[in-house]
Amino acid sequence: MTPEEFRAAGHQLIDWIADYRARIAELPVMPPTEPGAIKAQLPDAPPALPESFEAILADLDRIVVPGLLHWQHPRFFGYFPSNGSLASVLGDYASTGLGVLGLAWQASPALSEIEEVVTDWMRQMVGLSPAWSGVIQDTASTSTLIALICARERTTAYALDRGGLQAEPRPLVVYTSAHSHSSVEKAALLAGFGRQNVRIVPHDAQQAMRPDALAAAIAADRRAGATPCAVAATSGTTTSTAFDPLEPIAAIASAESIWLHVDAAMAGSAMILPECRHLWNGIEGADSLAINPHKWLGAAFDCTLYYVRDPQHLVRVMSTNPSYLQTAADGRVKNNRDWGIPLGRRFRALKPWFLIREQGVAALQARLRRDLENAQWLAGEVRTTADWRLLAPVTLQTLCVRHEPNGLDADALDRHTRAWVDRLNRSGAAYLTPALLEGRWMVRVSIGAEMTERAHVAALWQAMRQAAAAPLTV
Amino acid sequence: MTPEEFRAAGHQLIDWIADYRARIAELPVMPPTEPGAIKAQLPDAPPALPESFEAILADLDRIVVPGLLHWQHPRFFGYFPSNGSLASVLGDYASTGLGVLGLAWQASPALSEIEEVVTDWMRQMVGLSPAWSGVIQDTASTSTLIALICARERTTAYALDRGGLQAEPRPLVVYTSAHSHSSVEKAALLAGFGRQNVRIVPHDAQQAMRPDALAAAIAADRRAGATPCAVAATSGTTTSTAFDPLEPIAAIASAESIWLHVDAAMAGSAMILPECRHLWNGIEGADSLAINPHKWLGAAFDCTLYYVRDPQHLVRVMSTNPSYLQTAADGRVKNNRDWGIPLGRRFRALKPWFLIREQGVAALQARLRRDLENAQWLAGEVRTTADWRLLAPVTLQTLCVRHEPNGLDADALDRHTRAWVDRLNRSGAAYLTPALLEGRWMVRVSIGAEMTERAHVAALWQAMRQAAAAPLTV
Repeated sequence: MTPEEFRAAGHQLIDWIADYRARIAELPVMPPTEPGAIKAQLPDAPPALPESFEAILADLDRIVVPGLLHWQHPRFFGYFPSNGSLASVLGDYASTGLGVLGLAWQASPALSEIEEVVTDWMRQMVGLSPAWSGVIQDTASTSTLIALICARERTTAYALDRGGLQAEPRPLVVYTSAHSHSSVEKAALLAGFGRQNVRIVPHDAQQAMRPDALAAAIAADRRAGATPCAVAATSGTTTSTAFDPLEPIAAIASAESIWLHVDAAMAGSAMILPECRHLWNGIEGADSLAINPHKWLGAAFDCTLYYVRDPQHLVRVMSTNPSYLQTAADGRVKNNRDWGIPLGRRFRALKPWFLIREQGVAALQARLRRDLENAQWLAGEVRTTADWRLLAPVTLQTLCVRHEPNGLDADALDRHTRAWVDRLNRSGAAYLTPALLEGRWMVRVSIGAEMTERAHVAALWQAMRQAAAAPLTV
Repeated sequence: MTPEEFRAAGHQLIDWIADYRARIAELPVMPPTEPGAIKAQLPDAPPALPESFEAILADLDRIVVPGLLHWQHPRFFGYFPSNGSLASVLGDYASTGLGVLGLAWQASPALSEIEEVVTDWMRQMVGLSPAWSGVIQDTASTSTLIALICARERTTAYALDRGGLQAEPRPLVVYTSAHSHSSVEKAALLAGFGRQNVRIVPHDAQQAMRPDALAAAIAADRRAGATPCAVAATSGTTTSTAFDPLEPIAAIASAESIWLHVDAAMAGSAMILPECRHLWNGIEGADSLAINPHKWLGAAFDCTLYYVRDPQHLVRVMSTNPSYLQTAADGRVKNNRDWGIPLGRRFRALKPWFLIREQGVAALQARLRRDLENAQWLAGEVRTTADWRLLAPVTLQTLCVRHEPNGLDADALDRHTRAWVDRLNRSGAAYLTPALLEGRWMVRVSIGAEMTERAHVAALWQAMRQAAAAPLTV
């Protein structure tokens, strides 16, 4: 495709995306797609000869859109908001169009330095001290893996330079809570700790890790001859937006010389609001921190900010320096390849750079405050409606809700919950994610898609009551 | 930004990218940027209020473009071709504009199933048997890490479910060659093996791993009480495009029950040419394989294909299944989150899907053959020119070259090599990556940028001779 062909096709595609975003509210949020239905529409083998761009574009309408869950839909209340704000989308378009790679500073100086500046802008926006250095990773899952590997290497004084984890005389232990994200346990297993060395620290009634229980677990492990290595705490858990109390946890981590990683993937965006920052009091005592501007804030996926207090340690664990990557600038510049797992890197900083500049911090704050207010409005409705219950504090924009009609035992209630949310999702009117809370199914309402206004939340609430009021099928 | 504002700004950006690609040959390939020069042009703090899109776009011209190494430039001969072919760029634009996430099949059925179909198209294009299952990862580095973790878990019968690597009684060992990519050793260290348990198997005069030396190293480790675990072989090494002989290596791996991972990051694209496939004879005996269509083939970065022969094993190592990710379709569908490290996934399949359809396989083959011919042409020029030497066979599109004027000892020759390539790169006329080969500096010429025609290679050759002919500064 020549630049002139790209110009023509690109204009078509821009119009197509603009139209998609403009009419998205008219689409069913979830498609009725059956497994295998998309595959069945595609040829088994690749084409030997070119197809027209029109044919490809037509397949977006014919095959792709009818097979998508529409994350940008104003009535999307599932998982978490994954806002691909259109200014940020354009930043990503610039990145892909430029087609440059950040293997080393010299391999694209602007890529490296704009990332440095924008991660520092975000540091200021969430109220972190200048002691933190940031880099962009793909996801919080990867960031947690990096954090636990860095913890492992700090505790073992760089066992990777010797016999690795397998040469350690005593097992290293990782602490987290049952409400941390599933990626924490996954990271611990991938990093080689083993499931037996992952301690699930008990939580309190608000699903927050109990510092006294953490201290007790560490003491028990020391008595048993194990080596406490890291604690993975959460600022804003996936299920109920619980905040592990970072101040006492950081004090324990510091006293015990263990690594503290904080997963603020979703709730980190809220810290651009000064009134929310009390929720992560103690954050300055952490060793590493992940925030996903690709969630609520609006940076197009993927864009996870990973902050550390000791970048030298990170670089020592992650660095590679073969001759073909060396340049004259080394030693005077930040080589981002030494801050994560992949060598190749996109120009991802353009996504938050475009977003923050086109919106301005004040408008981003206003949008998040709108969502907090919408969540409180819905919480008020749920609280004052018969048979409906809020199951956790509405700390930010997520509600944990259950419809509890009289006369259902626990199992029947689980079936009722899953049935009505399934009915609602299949109707296309809205999308919600059910989840287990303390062993029982309930429904998460995650408010904060960029297009979601009060009217959409009100429509959701009506659809929820309708779906739950259908004849019980228990 | 509203859809209508996006429409207007998007058209501007499309024109800007089309103009950039159309005039890219007029730009110096490498910028004269000094460390810190980009940062100095940016505000220290984020803007509270919005800026116009015009101001942001203007900064692409004012700050970004003058600070980039232009990877899409027709006289870019550094590292490897990282072609962001414009059809593929549009596929990425569709992905970012749709803003959907593949947390689970149900979280976007079309995202999952088109990935399944396109990775199978690519499997057919490179001539692999139907025994392989593919998934898209970000990079070959990450894929190697996944492969070594999977090897670790197969050898230990899922130690991750018990005490992890740290509970293994005997050290697990990884084998590779000095010419494998730096990411292999990095992956082994991150996976916890430890540097002492990474064996560098000797290579032959063509930089290919010696199977007899591999067998000897394995035998020595078994005698010493260690457990051979994995061999990471390379199809097309970074420095000189050497091909480790897969047939005998696979036979050893099979006999010893150790994992064989093949890194075909760069050269895997060549396997769409049937005449190249003899180079990786034996590939069907590997356990895992990484190919980067985001290099020579033209898929916009990032797009690494990771193929495995035993997907159940991969899923068992990588899977997580918290309640909030469960859906009614589980068990009948492929959940890509269980095939890699990150949970969140972009709709990356659109990049190869658009590329393969807009080009057709025949045109992709023709472009790669053009590059192979250009490499042979330059090889002929180098061979027949006094004082110039080819240091390795030109198997595909990379040349290892040195200018060796009379009377220089080895150290002086190293200084001369680095000096002339630095002069050439700074001139902006072309970009080359120097590297060490058998302990001495030489220059890699990696041909295959999409816009590179014979005339650009001829211009490079003239610029090389000019740069090398400048007064010696040794």
